[in-house]
Amino acid sequence: MIVRKDETRLDQGFFSYRMLREDPSSRARTGRILTPHGEALTPTFMPVGTRGTVKAMGPDDLMAVGAAIVLCNTYHLMLRPGHELIQRLGGLHRFMNWSGPILTDSGGYQVYSLAKTRALTEEGAVFQSHIDGSRQFLGPEKAVAVQEALGVDIMMCLDECTPYPADHESAARSMELTHRWARRCLEARNPERTQALFGIVQGGTHADLRRASAQAIGSMGFHGHAIGGLALGEPFETRLEMIETAAGQLPRDRPLYLMGVGTPEDLVEGVRRGADLFDCVLPTRNARNGQFFTRRGRVVIRNARYREDPDPIETGCGCFTCRRFSRAYLRHLFIADELLAYRLGTIHNLYYYLTLLAEARAAIEAGRYNDFAEGFYRERTDGADLAV
Amino acid sequence: MIVRKDETRLDQGFFSYRMLREDPSSRARTGRILTPHGEALTPTFMPVGTRGTVKAMGPDDLMAVGAAIVLCNTYHLMLRPGHELIQRLGGLHRFMNWSGPILTDSGGYQVYSLAKTRALTEEGAVFQSHIDGSRQFLGPEKAVAVQEALGVDIMMCLDECTPYPADHESAARSMELTHRWARRCLEARNPERTQALFGIVQGGTHADLRRASAQAIGSMGFHGHAIGGLALGEPFETRLEMIETAAGQLPRDRPLYLMGVGTPEDLVEGVRRGADLFDCVLPTRNARNGQFFTRRGRVVIRNARYREDPDPIETGCGCFTCRRFSRAYLRHLFIADELLAYRLGTIHNLYYYLTLLAEARAAIEAGRYNDFAEGFYRERTDGADLAV
Repeated sequence: MIVRKDETRLDQGFFSYRMLREDPSSRARTGRILTPHGEALTPTFMPVGTRGTVKAMGPDDLMAVGAAIVLCNTYHLMLRPGHELIQRLGGLHRFMNWSGPILTDSGGYQVYSLAKTRALTEEGAVFQSHIDGSRQFLGPEKAVAVQEALGVDIMMCLDECTPYPADHESAARSMELTHRWARRCLEARNPERTQALFGIVQGGTHADLRRASAQAIGSMGFHGHAIGGLALGEPFETRLEMIETAAGQLPRDRPLYLMGVGTPEDLVEGVRRGADLFDCVLPTRNARNGQFFTRRGRVVIRNARYREDPDPIETGCGCFTCRRFSRAYLRHLFIADELLAYRLGTIHNLYYYLTLLAEARAAIEAGRYNDFAEGFYRERTDGADLAV
Repeated sequence: MIVRKDETRLDQGFFSYRMLREDPSSRARTGRILTPHGEALTPTFMPVGTRGTVKAMGPDDLMAVGAAIVLCNTYHLMLRPGHELIQRLGGLHRFMNWSGPILTDSGGYQVYSLAKTRALTEEGAVFQSHIDGSRQFLGPEKAVAVQEALGVDIMMCLDECTPYPADHESAARSMELTHRWARRCLEARNPERTQALFGIVQGGTHADLRRASAQAIGSMGFHGHAIGGLALGEPFETRLEMIETAAGQLPRDRPLYLMGVGTPEDLVEGVRRGADLFDCVLPTRNARNGQFFTRRGRVVIRNARYREDPDPIETGCGCFTCRRFSRAYLRHLFIADELLAYRLGTIHNLYYYLTLLAEARAAIEAGRYNDFAEGFYRERTDGADLAV
């Protein structure tokens, strides 16, 4: 690939972000992330490939739905099959046969949500593996080392995921730990490697902490930034306020990743507030439960009303599934517990998410993001009859 | 598709079989089956799509592994989602988005193997659905009507699957019932429809009955013939003897389908004895259990020896899976119960089966089938170290 000089902030072949277009009436913008494994146009959604595979998807399927970056989980891969093993086999890209960019989270969230017991110290987290109960340690330096071993394109700092709700004092204490860990991750990073490192903003649901965290993290020189600790149960409006507060303090010449968020509405509002990258298990998990996203709302395919429905999940949808199969067939597959159901459903939901963001990009390029968002909500309302 | 006059035994666009080449030193032959949904070169293997889906495979995957015909189960589809529903939705091809030929078995074997209780009379079988316990009836006329409603290309007569072992008297009685039902199926068939109907030879493991059954069924004017009631636990040598006995009595200008058989060895020996079509759940079921077929024997992927193995399941294999993934990755997927494991494994096993028969066809065309079979066994022996 030929890279024009002005498009690279760092060395060619290394990580770079370039903002392409700003929406005139919001913080929405398009951009291009360049990594050693190719580029991604932003804003975009990263399918979640927890254990080195996006559940039910082959790399061919991911290409077909338009995925540009895939997210994997450091915590899971470290425990099984182990990052050293993956490294000896040539790295995670080769292991899972995904030739595009990969971002890994640092494992902080999984230590918080999955590990059996955990003890957090200044040094890091000691926890029991949820797989075999073995005693494990994850600290900032180890999180970076594991992600470097995996050979991913974008590494995340180890953070402490502040629980929701958290009072001001404990949220502040937790945030400070995340900041100290962020500096240690920067220190630990091998500068000879080509991998980017993103810092994570915490601060709970306290606007002053979010502002302070964004200022602190944003000044450390990371290749990009993330907003963590959201979508943990807080009200939608609170979430948007925290995003807006943090995004307003972060340098706009670096990509912004909104971690673990979320619903289609979250994406539309996140883009409006300047977010470039998203990940969430919602489209893949819901697909495996037979809940499909459409412009008009959700289709719950096991519903008896679809028993003999000859239409695709969404009329006009260009995905592999909608171009070939009826709701009646998909319902049959789900009722019969057939494996094909999960692949076909996941293809549709990921296609929906990725197409939604492709349309958001087009709207930003055309300078009419607000119209796009309005259209999104209007179609939702029209489809209220689809709700369960 | 343009069909040359001399290639059609019946009307154009309808079912036909043409033998292309005979091996000089065995009964192996190549042929071409023509159906309203395209052709199939024989001998070939039909992946089993029990409930209107070959487990874990999309139609794209089936094309990629080289499947020419798919088999579905009348019994299963009749009970769920129901053949009338499938008919109203445009037939089974459209329902499952498979544009190639489809063969359905008649349900006789499933009544024998799956139904909760069953009462067999001259009229047919009354049984309880294994899904909801509902009372169901399946007789020869109904079996044909259901398969006509599904719109498949090749229908099978309803037969009684004679259990193994069965003494001469009960095997004879069962065979006679199958013959009477075969005549009723022929009568019941709507001659205005374009679907072919195959008759089934029974007779247990009694050579005289197999001979008599093949003569009776072979004289009724079916579009093709099948040998049923094998692979029920009888010794390999007995099975081959029954195949040889029956095949020797059947008209050689019609295709011969060896039902529910079997292992790669069964295929090699079945072809040698004149069989053109095969089906079996072995490649697909084994794949989902992590057991893969290779020229050198079976690979049990959960085995610890594959933990860090960078090689594909089979070096040199051209399947989607082997061109992309290591044994180490596949082992990881199986150990972690990841859905992708089932698709990738099934792709490999079906590719192995279909390629084995493609090579058999090439050997027959070259007049050296015995060399091919010898090579098959030699590679097996060399790979004895792969055995579990």
